[in-house]
Amino acid sequence: MANIKQKIRLDYNNMMSEAIGEQGFTKKDFAAVEDRVDFAVNYFNEKAGTGFMGWTKLHDEQDAIVADIITAANEVRANFKNFVVLGIGGSALGPTSVFQALCHMRHNEITATRRKGAPKFYVEDNVDPERMIALLQTISLKDTCFNVITKSGSTSETMTQYLVIKNELEKAGLDPKTHIITTTSANSGNLIKISQAEGYKTFYIPDGVGGRFSELCPVGLLPAAVLGIDIAGLLEGAKFMYELCTQSENNSNMALTAAKLQYIAMNKGKNISVMMPYADGLKYISDWYSQLWGESLGKNKLMDGTPCNMGQTPVKALGVTDQHSQIQLYAEGPFDKVITFIAVDKYRKKVVIPQGCDEFPNVNFLCGHTMNELIVAERNATEYAVTKAGKLNHTIFLPVINEFTIGQLLMFFELKTAYCGFMLNIDPFDQPGVEEGKNATYALLGRPGYEEKQRELNAGNKKYKKYMM
Amino acid sequence: MANIKQKIRLDYNNMMSEAIGEQGFTKKDFAAVEDRVDFAVNYFNEKAGTGFMGWTKLHDEQDAIVADIITAANEVRANFKNFVVLGIGGSALGPTSVFQALCHMRHNEITATRRKGAPKFYVEDNVDPERMIALLQTISLKDTCFNVITKSGSTSETMTQYLVIKNELEKAGLDPKTHIITTTSANSGNLIKISQAEGYKTFYIPDGVGGRFSELCPVGLLPAAVLGIDIAGLLEGAKFMYELCTQSENNSNMALTAAKLQYIAMNKGKNISVMMPYADGLKYISDWYSQLWGESLGKNKLMDGTPCNMGQTPVKALGVTDQHSQIQLYAEGPFDKVITFIAVDKYRKKVVIPQGCDEFPNVNFLCGHTMNELIVAERNATEYAVTKAGKLNHTIFLPVINEFTIGQLLMFFELKTAYCGFMLNIDPFDQPGVEEGKNATYALLGRPGYEEKQRELNAGNKKYKKYMM
Repeated sequence: MANIKQKIRLDYNNMMSEAIGEQGFTKKDFAAVEDRVDFAVNYFNEKAGTGFMGWTKLHDEQDAIVADIITAANEVRANFKNFVVLGIGGSALGPTSVFQALCHMRHNEITATRRKGAPKFYVEDNVDPERMIALLQTISLKDTCFNVITKSGSTSETMTQYLVIKNELEKAGLDPKTHIITTTSANSGNLIKISQAEGYKTFYIPDGVGGRFSELCPVGLLPAAVLGIDIAGLLEGAKFMYELCTQSENNSNMALTAAKLQYIAMNKGKNISVMMPYADGLKYISDWYSQLWGESLGKNKLMDGTPCNMGQTPVKALGVTDQHSQIQLYAEGPFDKVITFIAVDKYRKKVVIPQGCDEFPNVNFLCGHTMNELIVAERNATEYAVTKAGKLNHTIFLPVINEFTIGQLLMFFELKTAYCGFMLNIDPFDQPGVEEGKNATYALLGRPGYEEKQRELNAGNKKYKKYMM
Repeated sequence: MANIKQKIRLDYNNMMSEAIGEQGFTKKDFAAVEDRVDFAVNYFNEKAGTGFMGWTKLHDEQDAIVADIITAANEVRANFKNFVVLGIGGSALGPTSVFQALCHMRHNEITATRRKGAPKFYVEDNVDPERMIALLQTISLKDTCFNVITKSGSTSETMTQYLVIKNELEKAGLDPKTHIITTTSANSGNLIKISQAEGYKTFYIPDGVGGRFSELCPVGLLPAAVLGIDIAGLLEGAKFMYELCTQSENNSNMALTAAKLQYIAMNKGKNISVMMPYADGLKYISDWYSQLWGESLGKNKLMDGTPCNMGQTPVKALGVTDQHSQIQLYAEGPFDKVITFIAVDKYRKKVVIPQGCDEFPNVNFLCGHTMNELIVAERNATEYAVTKAGKLNHTIFLPVINEFTIGQLLMFFELKTAYCGFMLNIDPFDQPGVEEGKNATYALLGRPGYEEKQRELNAGNKKYKKYMM
């Protein structure tokens, strides 16, 4: 099934008044946003490939890089038992979500043979000391290749992990440059300078590609290739979706339609976007989407500088699991969310539910069905229940989970996010709101030049501490 | 540090106008809800231990059960290399969150010696056929004990997993009753009958304990004991928090205060509750909380039957990781959420950030600090940034992560949820909204007695399918 090359599909019937009644959308709602939709399309076409929209070229301009990545990946596979990504944000969420979707669900616990020679895989995206020690207790350094990923080269978390690992390698008498591959900007930052000084093999993150749009550049492609994932297939899927959405009429532009639906919902005050795939393999696609959607649209000023407090909060859910956790709220709670189900037409495995419960009719009805039928029935049943409750929901269908459909899905969400950002008239590619916290961290750790901020923090902390128990 | 017995703490200064300005709470806000708070306390005291509030007695009345559990757990540890929970909802989220908090972060990948003899641990809470096959490819059945957990004994997902596993055991020539332990209601449902017929060792879920309040009954205690977790310590922590909140003045009732803060926020239209622990070990506490909070408060009628659409949507975040994913939105986005940070005073491990970056001052400032200092600085910096942005936030402090503090934390959230439900005048212990989907699933799979529902579904599906692409 790896080579099935079918289009993913969007079913948004349950966003419409015909399906859910007064909460549903009407022709009038679509007419009211036509101008913004046209603006978004034109603005997108005008800016594509420029500035921070370099990600729109990744599926077309990387043949040489892909070849280089595959060569490096094969060397890693030949020489190492473990591959560890040191990165945070997009540098971690992209590799994790593609790994979960396209590798064995117990990758690190099965035999190397069953892994088809791929190393064990770890993504370290936190600075919890307990987690760093746990990693060091689990892997043998001499068998491990580390991929340090940070575009700026000054991400405190990633550079901290790098310093700890480099030191551990040296303490173990190992040569860092044979164990470390870096992925960073070619033109700026510390990591490129460090890489040149230390002689690390380095892959480059194009200037126009921000962290949350970087999965289809070496940030995501190297880990994927090391895992044996067909990265050309990922890019082919992305290219297919990009061309479908940009080189055809708007009525086949799935990403634009999905953006428009979300934009109308936001105008109606729906401030929550639930992402609920019905496949364990797609669980971390929700995490990747949460950064893409949250960080891109969560802004406090419009493109022209007008103050606002924009954004829709992403919520991660997993079908069927969260039917027993969140569906009670989604069905009976407020009309404040849009639910996006992700469905899979054909799972990669099939399990028959055996007989053996004849005396218990309200269990026995399951027998003879397959788990495949059960998970599909539960998705349909849940869609039916939230629709009957009048809640906005729509479904993205993957014919099967493979490189081609995952490539499409990633590009679909990236395009949807860009279009929606333009409809909202905000810049979906910056993240000024994280600077305050970064600077405060620098101040608290005594980085030179942040003394003023340090005084501000100390003052703030002393001001009030009444409400504690 | 396992035996440090200190109280967890609540700091809610950043919920107040003194800290965040106009979005913050004032004395007036507290005065306005006094009646509801009094009602909640009185109603709680009146109902505690009755009906579906049997969970309030778990920390007091389980000495004999704990002894039985520890005996069974030691047998499992002596005879099996793997322990697999088959359950969904509370039957999975409780065991998972306590496991993640109190066991090694790479438990299944380290040696049995480092695991102190505990078996590998798996919680299977979905019916994705790919995941079932992955599990069967990973474990050896003869070395595996399965704990089937469902109170009703008719949960389709869990009974499906049971049927598949029982069949696999028999195919492998193994005796199911030596490999299966069940946890279910003593008085009703299929699983107790099946257990008696098959001769399975069985633990009982008390009638007054619902799934999301069941972690401190055998549902959670057996898996924890098998993993070598001090379950008496968990219960001791829960008892400590329960008595602190119910046997003292309201001004030391942390759970009541936390409920009141959330209730005021909900009245002000804050429909999102973010749970953001700064420790990988606490990551799944957010998942457990999401069910507890979402399913308990997400209701469409008040206690007197008046229609409503109540509920606050839980959002899972992890510090520092999600600073690079969600903080942009939290800082600059809408004033629609309450952020709960969970802080740890003393991590169980310490990692020094070594020297080795002298030429790069904006990395070098990290050197000589510890990862412990970094993660604490980042939490303080993030708290400072969202506070400066005027966003409602408060922090729960754990002196250290151990059985006593986790027991406190679980009870704190359970009490907070019950109090808040009573303030909202809804029933926090039922989940009628999941019935519609369950019945639809039965209908789709042809369960006898659901023919009418099946006709309804087919009609519904045929009605409209215009909006697809």
